[in-house]
Amino acid sequence: MPILLLVLDLGGTFVFAISGAMVAVRHRLDIFGVLVLAFAAGNVGGITRDLLIGAVPPAAIADLRYSGVSALAGLITFFWYPATNRFRNDMLWFDAVGLAFFAVAGAEKALAYGLSPVMAALLGMVTGIGGGMLRDVLVSDIPTVLRADLYALAALAGAGVVVSAHLLHLSPVVAAVAGGGVCFALRFMAIRHGWHLPVARPPPATASEAPHHRHDDEGN
Amino acid sequence: MPILLLVLDLGGTFVFAISGAMVAVRHRLDIFGVLVLAFAAGNVGGITRDLLIGAVPPAAIADLRYSGVSALAGLITFFWYPATNRFRNDMLWFDAVGLAFFAVAGAEKALAYGLSPVMAALLGMVTGIGGGMLRDVLVSDIPTVLRADLYALAALAGAGVVVSAHLLHLSPVVAAVAGGGVCFALRFMAIRHGWHLPVARPPPATASEAPHHRHDDEGN
Amino acid sequence: MPILLLVLDLGGTFVFAISGAMVAVRHRLDIFGVLVLAFAAGNVGGITRDLLIGAVPPAAIADLRYSGVSALAGLITFFWYPATNRFRNDMLWFDAVGLAFFAVAGAEKALAYGLSPVMAALLGMVTGIGGGMLRDVLVSDIPTVLRADLYALAALAGAGVVVSAHLLHLSPVVAAVAGGGVCFALRFMAIRHGWHLPVARPPPATASEAPHHRHDDEGN
Repeated sequence: MPILLLVLDLGGTFVFAISGAMVAVRHRLDIFGVLVLAFAAGNVGGITRDLLIGAVPPAAIADLRYSGVSALAGLITFFWYPATNRFRNDMLWFDAVGLAFFAVAGAEKALAYGLSPVMAALLGMVTGIGGGMLRDVLVSDIPTVLRADLYALAALAGAGVVVSAHLLHLSPVVAAVAGGGVCFALRFMAIRHGWHLPVARPPPATASEAPHHRHDDEGN
Repeated sequence: MPILLLVLDLGGTFVFAISGAMVAVRHRLDIFGVLVLAFAAGNVGGITRDLLIGAVPPAAIADLRYSGVSALAGLITFFWYPATNRFRNDMLWFDAVGLAFFAVAGAEKALAYGLSPVMAALLGMVTGIGGGMLRDVLVSDIPTVLRADLYALAALAGAGVVVSAHLLHLSPVVAAVAGGGVCFALRFMAIRHGWHLPVARPPPATASEAPHHRHDDEGN
Repeated sequence: MPILLLVLDLGGTFVFAISGAMVAVRHRLDIFGVLVLAFAAGNVGGITRDLLIGAVPPAAIADLRYSGVSALAGLITFFWYPATNRFRNDMLWFDAVGLAFFAVAGAEKALAYGLSPVMAALLGMVTGIGGGMLRDVLVSDIPTVLRADLYALAALAGAGVVVSAHLLHLSPVVAAVAGGGVCFALRFMAIRHGWHLPVARPPPATASEAPHHRHDDEGN
């Protein structure tokens, strides 16, 4: 079970480190800036979770493998950027896998530290979206994780399944597969079939105050 | 006294969660993005305080009522946005009340955890402005809490009154009412009578580097 | 040795608090906003380090001298802004000294808390760049620490020298002088002689998505 957690955590770290490195390359940061943003995107979700549940020092600080995996992802992205960029649309799927990994890992670890079921599910979501949030804030964008369809919700749903499976005394591996599957499936429906949640329509009077910069929805 | 703290904390959470949800609706986030920003704006100030004083896991994570209150505020804002938006000017007063609640709650809790008086006052300020800071950073704005008149100062003054009352061995309720009153009064004078602090005038040579986007001061 | 750490920490805090205050003045924040940004820029690097290594409450919260030094730096900048601004180019050197102080202090403190050598070096870097990151994010800029040449790398190299000296059982003072010297020297070569790291060249197809706002590299 600690091995399951480690695999999920490192898998999610690798995926998000790639996404951080791609954003860094696109903003013309030098190779070290790419590595820093890869580490931030890949680990800040897990670090936030660990600080909130009192697991100090956080795994990403205490265990070298996290920074190793992040650095590897950063270097791959930097040196093969044209190649990684060509797979950009595939990145959405890759990112959905990383989100599923992190949502499951976050919920499992929070449960292991004795948090209540609801809070364990919320911490799964925080683990999943934390790194991407910081990545986008650092390059002055409104976080994709807040704007992409069914993104934070998919993380919460996946984490919720893990917690429910735990309450039903199912094995952690079954919980992880089911939770990760639900998270990935929701993102799949959002990306492929346009599933989305409603948006409140601001009244006409405030329409002119709407933000001027509208990014494309899944844009990174 | 724990009940006083809980009431103040939850009251502040509700108010700031509404402000976070309104910003999210104005940026066209979907309903789940609205809930996430409501939670962030309503709880990050208190979570930061709790991490800094070593109260782990933070109350907003350990106690379901915080996320419940945040979700309620987010849903109200989402479904009655035209109505809540119509009360937008009243929101400034509402926000001043929330700031007073958080400043007092932050100072009281820091004192209860044995921090020095000066630091308890500073933590009251951090509790008051932390959530609003993250709210604005997440939508790529310069935080209102740094630009609005007498905002952070009002929080610090209110928290300072709480700490002074504590040193004079007054009851926590008296301290809370006096501190909250001072915080609210300062914001009242800023909003209604234009009280403000001086701004340094940059020399002509650097005027052209001044930031190009100037938001209206109390604008959200 | 605790005195060495305190001197380095407070020195770095003073320098970064000045840089935070200058950014605040340039964005026309009032005097209290200047003080808040001075505190944030001067202390968030150290606070992050302390949270990550479990030194709670962080030194910047438990020890009044940190906020005192930050407030002093903020007031000096506010009242003598034309003068401090005239020395703006010298600020780059001053900033390099602060970075060296923080990188060394961060590594020393992480070692004292029993972290592994690699992680102690990384925490030295986090201490050095954390405050500047938040400073720039709060005014909606892409952090200079990610874009300036050899910035985060200089911090990591300096911290790495400290850690290596520690492994060789050299005295902390020797380690601090050597590590700080390396950090400063790298920034010196970047500023004076244009040393820099490679940037990945995005393929033509994505060139049009390149960020539209390109700031001058060392611009603050």
